[in-house]
Amino acid sequence: MEDGRDQPRSAADLTVRPALMTTLLASTTRKMPRTGKRRICFPITSRAYYGRSQLLIRKLHADPDIELELMLGGSILLDKYSRHVADDIEAGGFNISGSFLNVIEGGNHVAMAKTACLTALEFTNGLHTLDPDIVVICGDRFEQLAIAMTAAYLNFTIAHIEGGDVSGSIDESVRHAITKLAHVHFVTNDEAFRRVLAMGEDPRYVFNTGSLDVELASRVGDAISSERVNSYGVGHAIDVNRPFVMVIQHPVTTEHGQREHLLATLRAVAALNVQAIWFWPNPDAGTEEMAGSLRHVREEHTELTAQMRFITNVPADEFVALLRRASCVVGNSSAGIKECSFLGTPVVNIGPRQQGRLAADHVRHVGYDAAAIRAAVEQQMGHGPYPPSTLYYRPDTSDQIIKLLSTVELYTQKRFFDSVAAPVQTV
Amino acid sequence: MEDGRDQPRSAADLTVRPALMTTLLASTTRKMPRTGKRRICFPITSRAYYGRSQLLIRKLHADPDIELELMLGGSILLDKYSRHVADDIEAGGFNISGSFLNVIEGGNHVAMAKTACLTALEFTNGLHTLDPDIVVICGDRFEQLAIAMTAAYLNFTIAHIEGGDVSGSIDESVRHAITKLAHVHFVTNDEAFRRVLAMGEDPRYVFNTGSLDVELASRVGDAISSERVNSYGVGHAIDVNRPFVMVIQHPVTTEHGQREHLLATLRAVAALNVQAIWFWPNPDAGTEEMAGSLRHVREEHTELTAQMRFITNVPADEFVALLRRASCVVGNSSAGIKECSFLGTPVVNIGPRQQGRLAADHVRHVGYDAAAIRAAVEQQMGHGPYPPSTLYYRPDTSDQIIKLLSTVELYTQKRFFDSVAAPVQTV
Amino acid sequence: MEDGRDQPRSAADLTVRPALMTTLLASTTRKMPRTGKRRICFPITSRAYYGRSQLLIRKLHADPDIELELMLGGSILLDKYSRHVADDIEAGGFNISGSFLNVIEGGNHVAMAKTACLTALEFTNGLHTLDPDIVVICGDRFEQLAIAMTAAYLNFTIAHIEGGDVSGSIDESVRHAITKLAHVHFVTNDEAFRRVLAMGEDPRYVFNTGSLDVELASRVGDAISSERVNSYGVGHAIDVNRPFVMVIQHPVTTEHGQREHLLATLRAVAALNVQAIWFWPNPDAGTEEMAGSLRHVREEHTELTAQMRFITNVPADEFVALLRRASCVVGNSSAGIKECSFLGTPVVNIGPRQQGRLAADHVRHVGYDAAAIRAAVEQQMGHGPYPPSTLYYRPDTSDQIIKLLSTVELYTQKRFFDSVAAPVQTV
Amino acid sequence: MEDGRDQPRSAADLTVRPALMTTLLASTTRKMPRTGKRRICFPITSRAYYGRSQLLIRKLHADPDIELELMLGGSILLDKYSRHVADDIEAGGFNISGSFLNVIEGGNHVAMAKTACLTALEFTNGLHTLDPDIVVICGDRFEQLAIAMTAAYLNFTIAHIEGGDVSGSIDESVRHAITKLAHVHFVTNDEAFRRVLAMGEDPRYVFNTGSLDVELASRVGDAISSERVNSYGVGHAIDVNRPFVMVIQHPVTTEHGQREHLLATLRAVAALNVQAIWFWPNPDAGTEEMAGSLRHVREEHTELTAQMRFITNVPADEFVALLRRASCVVGNSSAGIKECSFLGTPVVNIGPRQQGRLAADHVRHVGYDAAAIRAAVEQQMGHGPYPPSTLYYRPDTSDQIIKLLSTVELYTQKRFFDSVAAPVQTV
Repeated sequence: MEDGRDQPRSAADLTVRPALMTTLLASTTRKMPRTGKRRICFPITSRAYYGRSQLLIRKLHADPDIELELMLGGSILLDKYSRHVADDIEAGGFNISGSFLNVIEGGNHVAMAKTACLTALEFTNGLHTLDPDIVVICGDRFEQLAIAMTAAYLNFTIAHIEGGDVSGSIDESVRHAITKLAHVHFVTNDEAFRRVLAMGEDPRYVFNTGSLDVELASRVGDAISSERVNSYGVGHAIDVNRPFVMVIQHPVTTEHGQREHLLATLRAVAALNVQAIWFWPNPDAGTEEMAGSLRHVREEHTELTAQMRFITNVPADEFVALLRRASCVVGNSSAGIKECSFLGTPVVNIGPRQQGRLAADHVRHVGYDAAAIRAAVEQQMGHGPYPPSTLYYRPDTSDQIIKLLSTVELYTQKRFFDSVAAPVQTV
Repeated sequence: MEDGRDQPRSAADLTVRPALMTTLLASTTRKMPRTGKRRICFPITSRAYYGRSQLLIRKLHADPDIELELMLGGSILLDKYSRHVADDIEAGGFNISGSFLNVIEGGNHVAMAKTACLTALEFTNGLHTLDPDIVVICGDRFEQLAIAMTAAYLNFTIAHIEGGDVSGSIDESVRHAITKLAHVHFVTNDEAFRRVLAMGEDPRYVFNTGSLDVELASRVGDAISSERVNSYGVGHAIDVNRPFVMVIQHPVTTEHGQREHLLATLRAVAALNVQAIWFWPNPDAGTEEMAGSLRHVREEHTELTAQMRFITNVPADEFVALLRRASCVVGNSSAGIKECSFLGTPVVNIGPRQQGRLAADHVRHVGYDAAAIRAAVEQQMGHGPYPPSTLYYRPDTSDQIIKLLSTVELYTQKRFFDSVAAPVQTV
Repeated sequence: MEDGRDQPRSAADLTVRPALMTTLLASTTRKMPRTGKRRICFPITSRAYYGRSQLLIRKLHADPDIELELMLGGSILLDKYSRHVADDIEAGGFNISGSFLNVIEGGNHVAMAKTACLTALEFTNGLHTLDPDIVVICGDRFEQLAIAMTAAYLNFTIAHIEGGDVSGSIDESVRHAITKLAHVHFVTNDEAFRRVLAMGEDPRYVFNTGSLDVELASRVGDAISSERVNSYGVGHAIDVNRPFVMVIQHPVTTEHGQREHLLATLRAVAALNVQAIWFWPNPDAGTEEMAGSLRHVREEHTELTAQMRFITNVPADEFVALLRRASCVVGNSSAGIKECSFLGTPVVNIGPRQQGRLAADHVRHVGYDAAAIRAAVEQQMGHGPYPPSTLYYRPDTSDQIIKLLSTVELYTQKRFFDSVAAPVQTV
Repeated sequence: MEDGRDQPRSAADLTVRPALMTTLLASTTRKMPRTGKRRICFPITSRAYYGRSQLLIRKLHADPDIELELMLGGSILLDKYSRHVADDIEAGGFNISGSFLNVIEGGNHVAMAKTACLTALEFTNGLHTLDPDIVVICGDRFEQLAIAMTAAYLNFTIAHIEGGDVSGSIDESVRHAITKLAHVHFVTNDEAFRRVLAMGEDPRYVFNTGSLDVELASRVGDAISSERVNSYGVGHAIDVNRPFVMVIQHPVTTEHGQREHLLATLRAVAALNVQAIWFWPNPDAGTEEMAGSLRHVREEHTELTAQMRFITNVPADEFVALLRRASCVVGNSSAGIKECSFLGTPVVNIGPRQQGRLAADHVRHVGYDAAAIRAAVEQQMGHGPYPPSTLYYRPDTSDQIIKLLSTVELYTQKRFFDSVAAPVQTV
C-alpha cells in the first residue's frame, strides 16, 4: 500500500465470489414464484380471527391485483375449537400456503408460551418460502405477536389490524408490542389512532378504518333458527324466540383464580332463570382451569345448568345473529364492547379483561361478584336495546384496508416518529 | 332450580376438585426453592451484554438482599464469539440456572429468526422452573425480545434496560417492542425517558438512570499493553502507543448489500495508512456475508489488511481502554455514540444503524462511501479528542438500578398510560 | 521440518489452549453435583409407564446406593390422562429433575411425530444438565425412542426394559429401534431374549428378568369396591360383584379406520348385555378419531352405552384388581396378553396391534368384526378363568433389574455381536 | 337395548359426522398434488450424502416413472461445508420440496442432539405436506435417524441404503436403529445382508445391490489438475503429479480426546515429508474440538503444516480422482474402506471408527499413535496399489435400486421375521 495509498483500489478489485456469500437455502428453496401481484400473507391462528376477518379475506381473495395466501396454525387446526371454520375455509377456495400444527396441550402459561415459540419457529420456514410482500397480523392474540416477531426478523413488511386499543390480560402487552413491530396500522377508532401515533408510528402509515367486526355486524341480520342453534354443542335446547342471554368469558392470563371468576358468572346466570347460550373459552393460559370447571359443574350440578347450552363456536354471521337477538351479553369478550356497540345489545362486562377499552353506553362494568353480575344483567334486560353507536364503525372498512394494502408504499426500516412532546422528568 | 332460583348456591356447593384443575407440571417440577430474597433473572445472550452489564451483575451478585440467577443462551455459549467471557463468568462465581445452546448456523435472516424462536422455547422451561421475581432484559438484541415475550406469557415482571433510544436496523423495532412488554424501565437519557412515557408506560415505573456502558467507561482508564492487544485475534501487530483507529461495523439487518458496505469501510481504512483494530461483527442476519468478505479479503488482498488486526472480542475494561486510546472509532457501533460521548474519542458513524440516536458533538455521520468515510476519519483524527459529554452519564447508574430492582413494587398487568394528547386525524 | 522430519515434535509442543476447545456450556451449566452413587434417570412420559414401573421406581428411590431422578414429559403432565399419577408421584417423594410440557394437540400422525421431536429437544437439555450414569427407557412408546435417540447422541448409557417382543402398530418399529440404541437389555421372556441376541446385542448385557407388569400383577389382589370404581370417569354405575367386561382398545397408528374399528367393538360389547368398564385410548395418532367417536356415541346413542362406564385411568393396583375381577378383557392392550396370562383372566384380543406377541392359552384373537368379537367374548365368559401362565413371570423382576442397574459395567460404544444362534440364558 | 340386544344396530346407525373426525390440517394443507408417479423423497443433510448418491439422484430425476423430491437440511445448507454441492444441485434442476436451516452451532454432543431433534421437527412438516410414497434414508448419520423416526411416525414407507454394516462411533447405533425403522433395505455387501436378516427384517425386502460409492468410484477416472485442487481450501500448493497422501479424520462421538487423536495423525503426517491433502472433519460432536486444533496448529505451528493443504470438500468425482491418485489414504473415513477397496489405494485406518467394517487387504489398522501411524503409512506407500476388490461392488447398483424403488410393494406395518439362519441372496 506504500505508494498506492492515495488511490484506493477499485471496487472491482475487491469483488468477493458471490457463491461464497449466499447459502444454498436462499438459492434452492422452492420459493413461491412471483406473480406480479402483491402477495399478502394472512396468518390465521384462531377461529375468532377467521370470523372477524372473513369479509376482508374473501375480498382479498377475489381481488385481481392481490395474491392472498393464508397460513394456518394454532387452535384453528384443532377440531374441537374450529370445525365450522374448516368447512368454511375449504368452501372458500383460498390458497393455503402452510398449515402448522403447533398447539401445546395444557391450557396453562407454559403451554401458552411454548405454543407461541413453536408457532414462530414453524412460521419462519413458511414465511421465508412464501416470500410475501406484506404479512397481516390481526389483533392481540399471543401467537400473533410471535408471528410478527419472526416476520420482522425475516425483514417483511407487517400490517397490523386493531392496534392502539387498550384492554386487560396479556392482550394489552401483546397488542402494543405488535404495533412496535408493524409498519402499517389499521386502527378501529379515534382513540386508538391517537395512541398509535403517540407510540411513535409514522402518521403516513396509520389509518383509522373502523372495525372489521363491526362492519360485519352491520351487514348481518338476526335470522337464525332454534334448530340451527341446537345443532351446535350440548345442553338445553334453546328457543331463540324467547329471551336468552349469551355468556362469553375468557381467562385473564395475568390473574389467578380463573375458576372462581367463572363460577361467579355461572352462579349469577343460573339465578336469572332465563335461557343461556354459553360459549367455551378461548385456548389461553387458564382455559384448562375454566373448561374443567364448566365440565365439572355440568356433570355434577346439572340443576345449575338446566337452561344452559354450551357451544364451542358458530360461524361468524350466526354469531352476529345471536348477538342481535340476545337480551344481554355477559362476560368479557370484545364482541360485547365492539359489535354490540353498533347492534345496541345490552352488555354486562365482567372484570378487567376489557379495562380501558373505548366503550359506548350499552355496557355496564362489574367485578367478579355473582350478586353484582346478576343485578347488572337484570337491569340490562329491563332496559332493553340501546341506540347504535358508531364509535367503531366505518361503512367501508374492508374496502379501505384492501385499497391501502394494494397501494401503500412498502418499507421495512422503522423509525420512531416523535409526534408528541411530553414533559421530561427524572429520578 | 325451581324454588331455589333466588338463592344462588354458595360457593362451597360449587367446589371443584382442585386436583382436576392443576397439572402435574406445576406441582412436581423441582422449582427453585424460595430464599426470601428477590430473585432476579438475568438472561445473557451475547458478549456485549455481559460486557456492558458486568458492573451491575457483580453488584447484584454481591447484594445480600438479592438472589441473582444468570441464564445463558445465544452466542455467549460459543467459543468463537465469547471465550473471554466464559473465563470471566466462571471466575465470578455466579449462579447459572440454565445454559441453552441455541444458535442456528447460517448468519442470515432465517438463522436469526429461528435462533430467536428456539431461544424463547428453551428459556420457557428455564424461566418456569426458576420462577424469578423479575426478569431483566437488556437493550435491543433480537433474542432478548424473544425472551421478553416468553417471560411475559409466563406472567413474570420484566425490567428493561436501555429502552426509548432510537436507531436503525431491526434493533429499532426490537427495542420498542420490548418496552411494550416490560413493566419497569431503566432508560439512559432524557429523550429516551420522554419516548417511553409517550409510548404509554406508567411514569411511576420509568427511570432515567443513565447508561451502564458509560458508567463503566467512566471508571476504567487507558491502561493496556500492545502485548495484551496482540494476544487477541490475528493480523498486524498493533503498537498501542502509536495512533490507531478502531473499526466496529455490524450488519444492518433491514438492508441488503452488507458486503459492499463492509468493503467501502475497508477500502477507506486501508487508504488511511494507519494501524487499525478491526472487530468482527456480531452474529446477526448478514454476519456471514460480512465475515466471509473479511476472511476473503484477508486471504486474497493481504496488502489491504497489512496494518489491520482482526479481533473477535476483548474484555469490557480493555475495550474501554482501547476506546480511550483510539484516534478515531469508525463503524456503526453504539459504543461510538455512547461510551465515546463521555470519553471524547472522535467517531465516524457510518450508515443508518444508529439513525436518530441521541449523539454529542464528537460524532460525524457519513454514508457507505469509501471516500467520504476516509475524509471524515482524517478530519476527526486531525481534530483530536472532544470534551466529555454527560448526555448518557449518571454517576451511580448500577447502584440506582439495584436499589430500584430491590424495592420497586412488582406487577404484571400492564395498562396504557395516556400521558400525552395528540391531535386526532383520520383517513 | 526439513531436518527435523525424523523427530516428530512432542505432544507438548502442540498443546492447544484448552479454553479454545471447550464451550461455556460445558463449563458453567449448573450440572447436578455427583453424589458418588449411580445416577439413574427414568424418563416417564405416560401413565402406563409409571403404572407398570412403580414397583421398580419405588425400590430404586429407596436404594441407598442409587440416586433416582425422574424426568417427566408427554401425557403424564396432562390432567386429562394422568391426575392419579400426579397424586402418586407427589406422595412418593421422588426427585423430579425436569418436567417438560410437550404434547402437541391433534391426536393424529403429525401431532405424534412433532410431540416426539419436541420431547427429544427438551430432554436434551434436561439430560445434559442431569448427567446421568444410565438412562432407563421403557417399552415401545413413540416418545421413548425420541428420548433414547437424544440420550445416545449425548453419549449416555441406555438401559431398555421390554425389548425383543413383537407386536403390531408403530410400537413394533419403535421397540426394536430402541434395542439398537440401548446398551443393557431387560427382556421379559425367552423369545424376546433370543430376538435381542439375534439383533446383534452383546449377550453379556441381555437379561431375561421377566415382566414388571406381571410381577406387579402377582402381588396385587382383587380388592376394589364398586364405590371406588364409580369415583372414576362417567357413565353407568358399575357393580364389581356382578359380571363385567373391561375394554381397552388403542389406535393402531399404522392403520386407517380407527373409528370403524372402535365402533365394531362398541357394537359387540353393547350387544352382550353385560356391564362394561371402557378405558379411553392412549394419546397416539388416531386417538382423537377414536375418542371423538366414543364421545359422539355417548351423547347421541345413549342406549348403546347404557351399561358402560368410561374411565381415563386408575392407579396400577386398582387396574390389576379390575383385571382379576373382569369376566373378560376385550381390546388390544398388552395387559390382556401379559398381566392376564398370569391372572388367568380370559381375553379377546382384537386386530393386529399385538400381532406375534408371545401369548398363553387365555387369549382368543379376532378381527375388527362385531359379530366375531361378540361371539368370542361370549365364549370366553362361558369358559371362565384359565390356569396361570409363567411365560412372562419371574418372582423377583424388580430386584433383579435394580441389582443389574447397580452393578453392570457401563459403556457407550456399541458393537454388533454376531451370534445369530446363541443359546438362551436366563438370570 | 332390552329386546334388541340380539340385533346389533347397523353401522349406519352409528355413523359419526366425519367433519368431527378429521382435522383442518389434513383437509386444507396445500399438499403436493399426486402425479400418478411414485413420489420418492430424498432427504439430503450432508455433502457426503449428496456426493455418494449423486448417480442415483440424477437417474431418479431423469426417470419418467418417478417423481423425485429432494428435501434439504443440516450442513448441506451451510456454505462452509457445502458450497460446491449447492452449485451442483442448482445445476441439476432437481425439485427441492423443502429446505430447513437447522444446524445448532457448537460442534459438541448437545449441538448434535439438538440438531437432530430440530431436523426431525422441521422435516415433519415437510414430509407431511409432500406426502411421499417412499422416503429414502442413507447411511448412518445422526440426523438421518431423526428423519427416519419422524417418517415412520407419519406412516410413510422408508427405504434404507447401506444398512447392516458395522463400525464404531455413534454411527454403529444409528445405522441399525434406522434398519429397524425401515421397510426396504439396500445393503452393500454379503455380511451386511446377513446381519439385516438376523435383525428380523423380511427377506423379501432386503437386497444386496452393492455400494453406490463404489459404483461411482468405478466410473470415474483420475483426471484432476493441480490447479483444480489448489482452487479449493488454503495452504500448500499441491502438485498432483508428485506423491501425496490424503487425510480424512472425523470425530468419534463416543470417545473423548478428539484433539489428541487429531494431533497424533498430524504429527505422523508432518513427519512423512510428503505432500498432504487434509479434509476438514464432518460437523459432528467433537468437530469443533478437532477443527479448532487444526486452525490453531495452522496459525501457530506453520512448520508442521508446510506441505499440507486444508480443504473442506470437493465434488464427488474429483474426490474419487484424488483417491485414485493418492499414495495412501489416512484417517477413519469409510471411503478408505469402501471406495479404496475397489480402487486399490493403500489405506491406513486409525482408531475404532470403522471397527468391524468388512475390509479388503488394502487396509492397515492402527491406533492413535503417531509413530504407529507414520510407520503404517510408510509401509503402505512402499507397497503401492493393491488389486481391486469386489467386496462392495456391483456393476449396476443405482439401476438396481431405481428398479426396486419403482416396483417394490409398499407397506408400513413392520413384522419381525424370525430367520436367524437365512441363506444369503443377491439381486
